[in-house]
Amino acid sequence: VRIFLAEKGIEVPTVQVDLGAGEHLTDAFRAVNPHCTVPVLQLDDGVSIFESTAICQYLEEAHPEPNLMGRDAEERAVIASWHRHVETDGFLAVAECLRNNSKRLQGRASTGPDNIDQIPDLSERGRKRAKAFLARMGRRLDTQPYVAVDRYTIADILLLITVDFAKWIKEDIPEQFSGMHRWHEEASARPGSVE
Amino acid sequence: VRIFLAEKGIEVPTVQVDLGAGEHLTDAFRAVNPHCTVPVLQLDDGVSIFESTAICQYLEEAHPEPNLMGRDAEERAVIASWHRHVETDGFLAVAECLRNNSKRLQGRASTGPDNIDQIPDLSERGRKRAKAFLARMGRRLDTQPYVAVDRYTIADILLLITVDFAKWIKEDIPEQFSGMHRWHEEASARPGSVE
Repeated sequence: VRIFLAEKGIEVPTVQVDLGAGEHLTDAFRAVNPHCTVPVLQLDDGVSIFESTAICQYLEEAHPEPNLMGRDAEERAVIASWHRHVETDGFLAVAECLRNNSKRLQGRASTGPDNIDQIPDLSERGRKRAKAFLARMGRRLDTQPYVAVDRYTIADILLLITVDFAKWIKEDIPEQFSGMHRWHEEASARPGSVE
Repeated sequence: VRIFLAEKGIEVPTVQVDLGAGEHLTDAFRAVNPHCTVPVLQLDDGVSIFESTAICQYLEEAHPEPNLMGRDAEERAVIASWHRHVETDGFLAVAECLRNNSKRLQGRASTGPDNIDQIPDLSERGRKRAKAFLARMGRRLDTQPYVAVDRYTIADILLLITVDFAKWIKEDIPEQFSGMHRWHEEASARPGSVE
């Protein structure tokens, strides 16, 4: 959402939630988002939008340019297909590996209100899935410039996040995929993508 | 997608893919969807839309009535928030339990092109998450008639699927949640929801 806002060139007032201190599990935060996840977009009428993709969808409608989610029904569906693929097979695989291994996340293997025990085998499985995903995207980006369509979209933003997130589990784009390395360099130089 | 089409009252030509025979893993199917998942919507220009939500989004734009995904930006974002919540915390929890346990799915613990080993602990964890999710939705549906907004939407369709899917792992709506039982009865009587 932060990168999405930067690409749009818009600013919204933000409140940092201290996850390390468990602020997302307090009653005060549950009143904003009972699912205890960040980010949340609070609208002026008090309604909470509480999934990143739903927040981006709202922002895209409120600020259509630059377009990041598709200009017509077909483009929107193609971009949504790839965005969800990157999420399921990429981002969530890395998260699965990290959350089921990290000492800091013991008992917090999933986001949300419930405490969930780690499963070491799942961490390893997540790593395998992440490796396979990175190779698959590497093959794709050898033959085309962006993830979903012929320009930078929300699917590229999520892949950028996934590649940088994968460094936390010491995985990276395999060396031979020069197209994906080129893509990553370009994506990293865009608005909002500074660490 | 089948229920979504029925709610819209539209028909599209369909081709059944025999998952039991591994037809989704053949080269012929990979040419349609390299991710080897169903359903896929093939457009007239040959483009494949390959995630259920992306397919529904396309159908919603092509056939706006009856509205199932929101009438304005705020409604669309609220419905998308709940839809994704039901998917992540409900549908995927049940799938996690079933896919990591079923004898028929040995080596196929995830959808997609790669063979993934089952993890029995993950099956148990999925069951715990599914139980917690059903209770949480039960509490919600005690105080409001539908999942996301004041009418039946795609979020309700996914909850209906999740509740019926949960029967495969022998979980059900806890008895005390009469609101959710009432909701399930009504949802089950709607178009497309026959077994």
